[in-house]
Amino acid sequence: MFSNIYRHTLSCLGKKIAFAHVRNTSQICAQTLQYTKFGEPADVLELVQQEIPEPTDCEVLVKILAAPINPSDINTIQGKYPVKPPFPAIAGNEGVAEVLCVGEKVKKLKPGQRVVVAVNALGTWRTHAIFDEHQLMGVPAKLDLAAAATLIVNPPTAYRMLKDFVPLARGDCVIQNGANSAVGQIVHQLCKAWGINSVGVVRHRPNVDELKEYLKTLGATEILTEEELSTTEIFKKGGKLRPPRLALNCVGGKNASNVARLLAPKGVMVTYGGMSRNPLLVSTPALIFKNISYCGFWITRWSKEQAKSTEREKMFQELVQMLATGVLKGAKCEMVPLKDYKRAVAAALDVKGLVGKKLILDMSC
Amino acid sequence: MFSNIYRHTLSCLGKKIAFAHVRNTSQICAQTLQYTKFGEPADVLELVQQEIPEPTDCEVLVKILAAPINPSDINTIQGKYPVKPPFPAIAGNEGVAEVLCVGEKVKKLKPGQRVVVAVNALGTWRTHAIFDEHQLMGVPAKLDLAAAATLIVNPPTAYRMLKDFVPLARGDCVIQNGANSAVGQIVHQLCKAWGINSVGVVRHRPNVDELKEYLKTLGATEILTEEELSTTEIFKKGGKLRPPRLALNCVGGKNASNVARLLAPKGVMVTYGGMSRNPLLVSTPALIFKNISYCGFWITRWSKEQAKSTEREKMFQELVQMLATGVLKGAKCEMVPLKDYKRAVAAALDVKGLVGKKLILDMSC
Repeated sequence: MFSNIYRHTLSCLGKKIAFAHVRNTSQICAQTLQYTKFGEPADVLELVQQEIPEPTDCEVLVKILAAPINPSDINTIQGKYPVKPPFPAIAGNEGVAEVLCVGEKVKKLKPGQRVVVAVNALGTWRTHAIFDEHQLMGVPAKLDLAAAATLIVNPPTAYRMLKDFVPLARGDCVIQNGANSAVGQIVHQLCKAWGINSVGVVRHRPNVDELKEYLKTLGATEILTEEELSTTEIFKKGGKLRPPRLALNCVGGKNASNVARLLAPKGVMVTYGGMSRNPLLVSTPALIFKNISYCGFWITRWSKEQAKSTEREKMFQELVQMLATGVLKGAKCEMVPLKDYKRAVAAALDVKGLVGKKLILDMSC
Repeated sequence: MFSNIYRHTLSCLGKKIAFAHVRNTSQICAQTLQYTKFGEPADVLELVQQEIPEPTDCEVLVKILAAPINPSDINTIQGKYPVKPPFPAIAGNEGVAEVLCVGEKVKKLKPGQRVVVAVNALGTWRTHAIFDEHQLMGVPAKLDLAAAATLIVNPPTAYRMLKDFVPLARGDCVIQNGANSAVGQIVHQLCKAWGINSVGVVRHRPNVDELKEYLKTLGATEILTEEELSTTEIFKKGGKLRPPRLALNCVGGKNASNVARLLAPKGVMVTYGGMSRNPLLVSTPALIFKNISYCGFWITRWSKEQAKSTEREKMFQELVQMLATGVLKGAKCEMVPLKDYKRAVAAALDVKGLVGKKLILDMSC
């Protein structure tokens, strides 16, 4: 069945390791988390066996190593996300994988290479898959597995929101709520790397001082609770920081209004999430007289629009470099074996318990 | 006292009419609507006599002919507007005037010329005033007095909102609430002149069909009540109109949310007023997944920023041309003698009674 791939892989690499890879694929039956209707993940997800066809043309057969559980993955399975996959659907939108073998027209990828799935909605919660070459992006093998598995959604979200809405210079200030979210943590780190002050807002909690300290070690200039936000004087005249020109919002409701109130004239609030499930309350005088504006950001749209731009490639080079050198590190995470997926999705739904921690499905066990 | 002006004006014009103008000025004691504290206009405004000094250098002495009562004038007197004039303050922000005589360094303006006050917060609710030449803009004498008196605030607000936020092509669609407001009426007319479809939203009222008809004669493609807005199918697939790419909002609250819901992806809502006094409720999914954004527009800021640009001059040339040729006409208005100012400001405060009608102080009586 795989004879032509045997030959192609052998000719590509000309060494035994390639042969070993291909030998494995000939027996591959992928474990796949699939759903055939929308609903609660623990109810609708099924772990099924899928035979993997041989890759031809520009196709690449990969062994998926790890795939995170993002809030948007859960929402997609629930049918609450604007992306509605056809059924049967395979869950998961990002992940890190190893190339096992490649079709005859594949140009850049080779067996043994580490890759990430670079296109949304392909289904990554499975042990093996066939993708088109252009849907994959090579990453250095030395990159931490969790960092690689979570490269495609959160770091670019933070990066683009800091780059694309307000021109920020060193010493400028950014404010964000949900500072302990996966994106929030990256925002503080990128700001530190780029000489931008960042103020984060978090909910009060028993260990809030510990959390503040942790986020400051990541790079936050200041971390305030929602209560402290309303009385802070750090942005007042003669205060520690310039009023922020950019606000990043993943909470909505009153929290977002309180954050927006601190923006400098002409400031922009970029919304990328709505954890409180409350709409934003926007002040008319702030729009008119203070020239505050409100936009949204969705990495899925941006990635589609920029699929062929060099900007995306440039950004990932920079992010990978920062991750590889430790300038940037991903959110704390917990690896969960694929077979324990029910526990993993249940934990991912427990927003309070999970804040700042990402669950990653480990496909190797 | 005015001997040098006599000479200057005579040398400028060399004819009797100029002399007559100057003779008048020598006896001028301006009637001025002044206030020395913030409060309700009828309580704090006082009609006082003010001697007019002689214009020197770049100064211009004008006889003000008519000056409108805008909502922002009322709010300024109430102390509710971001522009806080020093006391004693003279009310009024726009108006049309006739040049009586000019200082020796004035280059472009001559006695007898029709001008409008082109800078905010100078005080126009008075019969005579001295302004700097650069604070005035010449307009054709044939321009309707009410149109000239209301040239500086409303027409540019409509013009800029249609030009500066979304690139609109012929056949595109704009939606606005407060369609019967002074700005709203201009929006429909400019859209018609530029080949853009415009849908207006108005409150239900006994004579709503008459109002709809009137706004359609101005140029509106469709006028809907707030109730009709929620069930309209004109923007549905195969419907009459493309979903709007631009929404103009002077109402806020639920009305604004319902208007924003109809925007096409990447649509922009521009807020320039908040008649309902309720904040905007902004949907998080619309920001993120539909890429809707929210901005504000304030003509006072725009005018300051563009004071020296040719764009402002170009716009006014176009607007004056449209007004002079009848392509554009101002909102219905009522001239009220200056001495009846208490009645006028009381009527201006009665928002419901006044919608679509502007009160203009007539300084000639």
